[in-house]
Amino acid sequence: MPDLTRNAVEVLPAGRLAEQLELGRPLRVKLGIDPTTADIHLGHTVVLGKLAEFQASGHTVVLIVGDFTARVGDPSGRSASRPVPTPEEIEANATTYQEQAYKILDPERTEVRRNGEWLQMGIDSLLRLMASTTVARLLERDDFQKRMAANAPIAAHELLYPLLQGYDSVATRADVELGGTDQKFNLLFGRDVQSAYGVPQQSILTMPILAGTDGVQKMSKSLGNYVGVTDPPAEMFGKLMSIPDEAMDEYFRLLLGDAGRPDGPPNQAKRELGRRIVERFHGAGTGPEAEAAFDRVFVSHAAPEEMPDVDLAPYIEDGDGAEIHLPRLIAGSFGISSSEARRLLAAGGVKLDGKPLGTDPLDLPAEALAERVLQVGKRRFAKLHSPG
Amino acid sequence: MPDLTRNAVEVLPAGRLAEQLELGRPLRVKLGIDPTTADIHLGHTVVLGKLAEFQASGHTVVLIVGDFTARVGDPSGRSASRPVPTPEEIEANATTYQEQAYKILDPERTEVRRNGEWLQMGIDSLLRLMASTTVARLLERDDFQKRMAANAPIAAHELLYPLLQGYDSVATRADVELGGTDQKFNLLFGRDVQSAYGVPQQSILTMPILAGTDGVQKMSKSLGNYVGVTDPPAEMFGKLMSIPDEAMDEYFRLLLGDAGRPDGPPNQAKRELGRRIVERFHGAGTGPEAEAAFDRVFVSHAAPEEMPDVDLAPYIEDGDGAEIHLPRLIAGSFGISSSEARRLLAAGGVKLDGKPLGTDPLDLPAEALAERVLQVGKRRFAKLHSPG
Repeated sequence: MPDLTRNAVEVLPAGRLAEQLELGRPLRVKLGIDPTTADIHLGHTVVLGKLAEFQASGHTVVLIVGDFTARVGDPSGRSASRPVPTPEEIEANATTYQEQAYKILDPERTEVRRNGEWLQMGIDSLLRLMASTTVARLLERDDFQKRMAANAPIAAHELLYPLLQGYDSVATRADVELGGTDQKFNLLFGRDVQSAYGVPQQSILTMPILAGTDGVQKMSKSLGNYVGVTDPPAEMFGKLMSIPDEAMDEYFRLLLGDAGRPDGPPNQAKRELGRRIVERFHGAGTGPEAEAAFDRVFVSHAAPEEMPDVDLAPYIEDGDGAEIHLPRLIAGSFGISSSEARRLLAAGGVKLDGKPLGTDPLDLPAEALAERVLQVGKRRFAKLHSPG
Repeated sequence: MPDLTRNAVEVLPAGRLAEQLELGRPLRVKLGIDPTTADIHLGHTVVLGKLAEFQASGHTVVLIVGDFTARVGDPSGRSASRPVPTPEEIEANATTYQEQAYKILDPERTEVRRNGEWLQMGIDSLLRLMASTTVARLLERDDFQKRMAANAPIAAHELLYPLLQGYDSVATRADVELGGTDQKFNLLFGRDVQSAYGVPQQSILTMPILAGTDGVQKMSKSLGNYVGVTDPPAEMFGKLMSIPDEAMDEYFRLLLGDAGRPDGPPNQAKRELGRRIVERFHGAGTGPEAEAAFDRVFVSHAAPEEMPDVDLAPYIEDGDGAEIHLPRLIAGSFGISSSEARRLLAAGGVKLDGKPLGTDPLDLPAEALAERVLQVGKRRFAKLHSPG
């Protein structure tokens, strides 16, 4: 029997899920997602992967596509009201989301529901729902507290979000609800709403939030630090190569189910991570292909086919070992001053074959530079040629 | 041209009503009332009287019977969520209220509307309404601030009240809205909602809150300090006799349109107040009748027609002036102990012709008692007869 709580941050209330698993019937395991963006990224797959584990143990996933709640907007983690997508965007996103979720979930054990089905209610039903809680309880959530402290507005309808998604649990008779740790308030609120409607209360299980490719912030489309599950193999591989070494452990654990990153040099481990994740979403054999394509395109840093040629000979300093003073080389190659070149080096804005050159050392042997691409900023390249 | 702002506490925004009155068309003057109780009392008539003045100047009153908002509950001045009346109670109250309002309003210039007509909306419309404001703005109101400070719960649906009653102003295209000073937040909120829906904003006019017969708290049925407009004449007169002298000025001003109470002894002024208010609601000539009935019933303290006769002769003490020792008389007349009689005297529980007897003096001449009614507590009476 696999441990369904592996990697979970919290499983509440204590002991409840264990009891439910003893019931001997398939549990209804809910995940609510709002189709505010089209694409599923690796951040979503942490929870989706956990749902797949429940399915593998015989349980039913209730995937709630929040076509209605998307119009209200989940305040979770938000410091401002979010823009409301149009109904057409919501519909398109919902369709895409469902297709992509099936890259991870077993369609045979997935019940997909749209919450407009029951949330498109009359005002009387909404009043009943609202009367089940207090303003203080609705404002308890961290994100609202922060906004209030900052005098940032909370639109009145945003208050409804936890009630509406909680009512989803009533309507679908959820036994368990999963979500990221940022959903804890909502998930627990679902229990309150179930209780107010006299139906059995769900247990909740929260999963860690995957950091984006910056290794710091939550992976999110709007932050641009995401890896989409439909990203082309080479792009997916390349984005994964950009994560900081420190984030690797978590990626191996949460995305591949390993205990952590394998031993060995970080770059080697990261390439393994990249290959395995590409294969997960694009199929066997696609990993090494993606890696090769990445190396071709990204390690050569998209250097254009045509670029100026620079002869290293004039830059060789007198002395041992035919050393070249980088600021002078850069200045001469790109028509800038030596001091500007030095500043760029210090800022990491100068690369040799895609790898940043620093200011230590400021001199390199000519053979370390010959036949390589020197790059300043994103768009200026020069091919260095042997003085020989 | 009568001054329509006479007695008003605030007329906002400054200058707006004056402009509206220049428009040369009948203004739509809104009053919203929630039929949470059946009867109109004098407190309500302060605003209703002002509406009647608008009617007399040719304007139209839009009387909104809040059959829908009554189910949400106006938080104004409330320190706790109010109990929700049943739909049957609301319907019965609404009918009664309307009938009673016509004691003051001109039916020909009154448009009566029930707000369930437009508030029975779908969730989409309510979301739009809610999105027009912020939580901070909804919580600004005094009553909510006090509740929050006291950690008293605010049910989530109570937040909707100002939005819903504000939408009444949109639906009825109100030019002016009237209310007591306790309605200021709601009335101003109506302007916000009108603005969010792109319709012209109303001006607002607030009237003072009439103190109840205790002279302290707002007149209210639930506080038991009210005079109902359908109270029988003698009861109405009697309740008015119980107001403190200090409250009289306000009653003359707000209920009779006088500049204040007339000169002369307070009791005489209060009787004039009572007669005039009775005549207002029960018709010409009913004032003096009510006064006489009151005197008969209340001043004689509702002494029953039949009561035991007590001969004073056995109680006359030996000595000058035929004095009678009260404790002994009371004990003998009502079959209680002398010490109990003395305690009752000290507590003010013994009356002679409706006036409390104290313990100083404890002896009275027989002629001061003869042919009078002795009363202990509320229900025990004895008629005293001359020893002669």
